[in-house]
Amino acid sequence: MRLATLLGPDVKELLHDDPDQVRALLEEIHAEDIADLVSELSSEDASTLLSRLEPSEAAPIFERLPMHEQQEILAHMAPEVAAQIAGAMASDDRADLFQGLPEHVGDALLSNLQRVDPEAAEEVREIEKWPETSAGHLMTTRYVSVLPTATVGDALAAVRSDALVRDEPVYNVYAIEEDDRLIGVASLRDLILSEPSESLADIMRSHVISVQAGMDQEEVARWMAKYDLNVMPVVDDGNRVLGVITIDDIVDVLTQEQTEDIQRIGGVEPLQEPYFQTSFFSFIRKRGVWLVVLFFEEFFTQTALRHYDPVFEAIKGATYYVPLLISAGGNSGSQSSTLIIRGLAIGEIKMRDWLRILAREASMGLVLGLMLGAIGFSRVLMYRDQHWQFALTIGITLVGIVMTGCTVGSMLPLILRRLGIDPATSSTPFIASLVDVLGIIVFVQVAKIVMADVILAHAAH
Amino acid sequence: MRLATLLGPDVKELLHDDPDQVRALLEEIHAEDIADLVSELSSEDASTLLSRLEPSEAAPIFERLPMHEQQEILAHMAPEVAAQIAGAMASDDRADLFQGLPEHVGDALLSNLQRVDPEAAEEVREIEKWPETSAGHLMTTRYVSVLPTATVGDALAAVRSDALVRDEPVYNVYAIEEDDRLIGVASLRDLILSEPSESLADIMRSHVISVQAGMDQEEVARWMAKYDLNVMPVVDDGNRVLGVITIDDIVDVLTQEQTEDIQRIGGVEPLQEPYFQTSFFSFIRKRGVWLVVLFFEEFFTQTALRHYDPVFEAIKGATYYVPLLISAGGNSGSQSSTLIIRGLAIGEIKMRDWLRILAREASMGLVLGLMLGAIGFSRVLMYRDQHWQFALTIGITLVGIVMTGCTVGSMLPLILRRLGIDPATSSTPFIASLVDVLGIIVFVQVAKIVMADVILAHAAH
Repeated sequence: MRLATLLGPDVKELLHDDPDQVRALLEEIHAEDIADLVSELSSEDASTLLSRLEPSEAAPIFERLPMHEQQEILAHMAPEVAAQIAGAMASDDRADLFQGLPEHVGDALLSNLQRVDPEAAEEVREIEKWPETSAGHLMTTRYVSVLPTATVGDALAAVRSDALVRDEPVYNVYAIEEDDRLIGVASLRDLILSEPSESLADIMRSHVISVQAGMDQEEVARWMAKYDLNVMPVVDDGNRVLGVITIDDIVDVLTQEQTEDIQRIGGVEPLQEPYFQTSFFSFIRKRGVWLVVLFFEEFFTQTALRHYDPVFEAIKGATYYVPLLISAGGNSGSQSSTLIIRGLAIGEIKMRDWLRILAREASMGLVLGLMLGAIGFSRVLMYRDQHWQFALTIGITLVGIVMTGCTVGSMLPLILRRLGIDPATSSTPFIASLVDVLGIIVFVQVAKIVMADVILAHAAH
Repeated sequence: MRLATLLGPDVKELLHDDPDQVRALLEEIHAEDIADLVSELSSEDASTLLSRLEPSEAAPIFERLPMHEQQEILAHMAPEVAAQIAGAMASDDRADLFQGLPEHVGDALLSNLQRVDPEAAEEVREIEKWPETSAGHLMTTRYVSVLPTATVGDALAAVRSDALVRDEPVYNVYAIEEDDRLIGVASLRDLILSEPSESLADIMRSHVISVQAGMDQEEVARWMAKYDLNVMPVVDDGNRVLGVITIDDIVDVLTQEQTEDIQRIGGVEPLQEPYFQTSFFSFIRKRGVWLVVLFFEEFFTQTALRHYDPVFEAIKGATYYVPLLISAGGNSGSQSSTLIIRGLAIGEIKMRDWLRILAREASMGLVLGLMLGAIGFSRVLMYRDQHWQFALTIGITLVGIVMTGCTVGSMLPLILRRLGIDPATSSTPFIASLVDVLGIIVFVQVAKIVMADVILAHAAH
C-alpha cells in the first residue's frame, strides 16, 4: 500500500504507456492497489490495459473496481474479452456485475460467457435466482469438497487440485454426500494436524453451522459475527450445499447495511451508489419524497397554532417560545429513537422489552425535562416584562414535552417493527415532526391551566 | 444453533444440576450457544458451573459472555480459578476483560495470573500499553511464526506444535527474523500446495501488508476490508511483529464504531454498555449534556423572534408558520449532514471535494426548496384571509431555508473534520438548531422585501 502511494504517478503512466509491465507489477503490488490506480485512468485506457492482460490477471483487478467503472470499462471492451474476464472473476463479484448491468447488456455478456465458460454462466444463473440481499446472492458457488468417505490425504489433494483452477483463499474442506447433503467440515488446520491416512469422518466437525439461501444477508452477518466464522455454508431446504459465504463479503454487507440505516435515520431513502456517483435526479427523488412527507406532517403545527389563536393572542410573546419548546421535544425524541433503533438492529433490545423501555424512557424524560424546565423557567424570569406565571408555564411545558419526546421516540420504532416496517425508515425526523405538534398541544394545555386568569381576562377584554 | 434453541430450557436445568455434563454438551454445541445459556443463569450458578470445568473448556464460554456478566461471575469465583480461566482465554478477549475491571480487582487478578501463567500476564501488560481503540489493543500476541530460513515442513511443524498449546484458528505462518522483523507470510493453503522440503522463502509473499500498533481500529478495519484480509500483522516502528488482528474482531469493531456514530448523530454521547446495562444516571449525563447545549443554542430562536417583533406584529399569523418553515431547513440540513458524515466515515468523500459538494448541495437545495416552496405557496393561498404577498413570502422563504439547510448541513461536517473533531459529534441536531435560527432570519428578510408595504403601513399605524 505504501509502495503504491509512493509510486502512484509513475505507475499510472506506466499502465498507460506499457500495459504489459502490469504483469511484473502484479507480483509486487496487491490487486486492490492496482485497481486504485486503474480507477484513475479513463475507462478507455483501463479497458485497453485490462484487455492486454491474461483474463486471470485482469479479473482480480476488474472485480475490485466500483460497479459504475466496471460498466463503463465493459462498454469499451471486445465482447469476447469481457466474457473471458467475467469468467475468471470471483463468482459472487461476477453475480454483482450482472445484477448491475442493464438487462440487454447482461444478456449479451451472459451468452458470450456461456461459450467461453459454461460453468461460470451456470453459476451466474444460480446466484441470480436469489433476491439481491439474500444469502444465496452473496455466496460463491465454488468451494472445496470431498465425499465423507474420503481420507485426510484425499481432502488435501482436493485443496491442491482446486488451486490449479482458481487462486482464492481456502479455509475449509466440506464433506458432502453424493446428493449434495452437508455432512461435516474440516479446516485446513485440522487437516494439517492429522495423518493423511486418517478418515476425514474421524476428524471433521459434524455439527456444521449453515444458513438457508433465502436468509437475509444482515442476519447472515450477525450469525457469522456471533460464531466467529470466516466461511459460512449456504444450503437449501434439504441441507444440500449451494455455496459458501466468506467473511470479506460480510464486512461489505455490514458497511452497506449501516450506511442504509444511517441514511434512513437522516431521512434519505438509501442510495444505491456512492455520493458522487448518485445522479442529481436520483437525489432529488430520494430526498424529496421525505422532505415533502415531513413538510405535510409539519403543516399540523401551523394548523394547531392557528387553532389556538385566542390563547396566543392572550399571552403576548408566547409564540416566540414555540420553536425553543418543540425543538427540546424533537431532540429528546431523536435521542430515544436513535437508541432504540440501534438497539433493535444489533439485537440488544427485543420487542418483549417494550414495557421496561417505556418505564425507563418516561422517567428519563421526567429528569431531563426537569433539567431543561429549570433552565427555561430561569431564562424567562430574566426578562422583566414576563410574568412569573409565564415562566412557570414554560418550565412545566418543557417537562411535559421532553417526556412526550422520550416516550413517543422510544415507542414508535417498536410499533414500526411490529408492523413489519424497518424502524430506521425516516423515523427520527418523522418523530421530530410528530413531537412538534404534540408539543404545541402540551404548551397550550399547560398555559390554559397555569395562566387561566390571563387568558380569561383577555377574552373578556 | 437450532439445537441449542430446541434444547434451551432442558440444557439450562442440566447446567444448573449437573455441571459435569457440560463437557459432553461442549462437543455438541458451539461455545457461543453455551454462553447464551450460561447468560441466563445467576452469576453465582454460572461461576459454580465454569469452575467445575477445565480452564481450557471454561475459557471459550467465559470469553463470549458480555463484559458486565464476566465481572459479576468473577466476583463469585476463587481467585485461583479465575486466574486459570483468564490464562486460557484468547489474548485479546483477556485484554478486554482487564480493561473493564476496576483497577484493584484487575491488579489482584493479574498477580494471580502471573503465578499461573506468566506468559499470559506478560501479554496483558503488552496489550494494555496501547490505547483502547488502537490496533495494539485489538491484537492477540499469539501467532505462528518461523525463521525465514525454515522449510515448508518446518512451518507445518510449527502449526502442529501451536495446536498443542491452544485451540484457535490459524490461517497464516509468518516468517520473522530473530530480531522480530516481519519478512514474509504464507497461508496454510500455500503450505499445503508446496513440498515439505521447499524453502519457505521461495513460496511466501514478501510484500506483507501490516499496520502500526498505534493505528486507530477503525482504520485497521478499513484496510482489512479493502484488502480482504482475515488476519493483519501488527508491527512497531521497526517493522517488528507485536501481534496479529483477526477479522472476527474487526466485525465487532465495525459494529461498535457504527453504534457510536449513530448515537452521536442522534445527539447522545456514545454509551459504553448496551441499553439495559447503561445506568440511569449515565443516560442522564450522556443525553443531558447535549440536550442542554442544544437548548441554549435554540434560545437564539426566541431571541431572534423577539428581536423581529415589529415585523411579526405587522403580519398577523406569521409566527404560526415559523415551526413549519424552520423544520424544512432542519430536515434538509439533516439529510445533507447525514450523507456527508457517512461519506466521510467510509472514505467515499474526501476533504478536497468540498467545493464540488457545496455546488451540488446548493443546487439540490434550490430544486428541493422550489418543490416545498410551491407547496407552501399553494397552501397559504387556500386560506381566504391570507394575502398573496404572504403566500409569496412563504414560498421564497422555503427556497432560501432549504438552500441554507443543504449548504450548512453539508459544510459543517467538513469544517468539524478539518478542526479534528469527529464530524458525527451531535452535528445533525446541532445543525438543525443552527438552521432554525438562520431560517428565522431568512423569513424576516424575505418578508421585509416582499411585504414592505404591509410592514410600513403597520409601523405608521
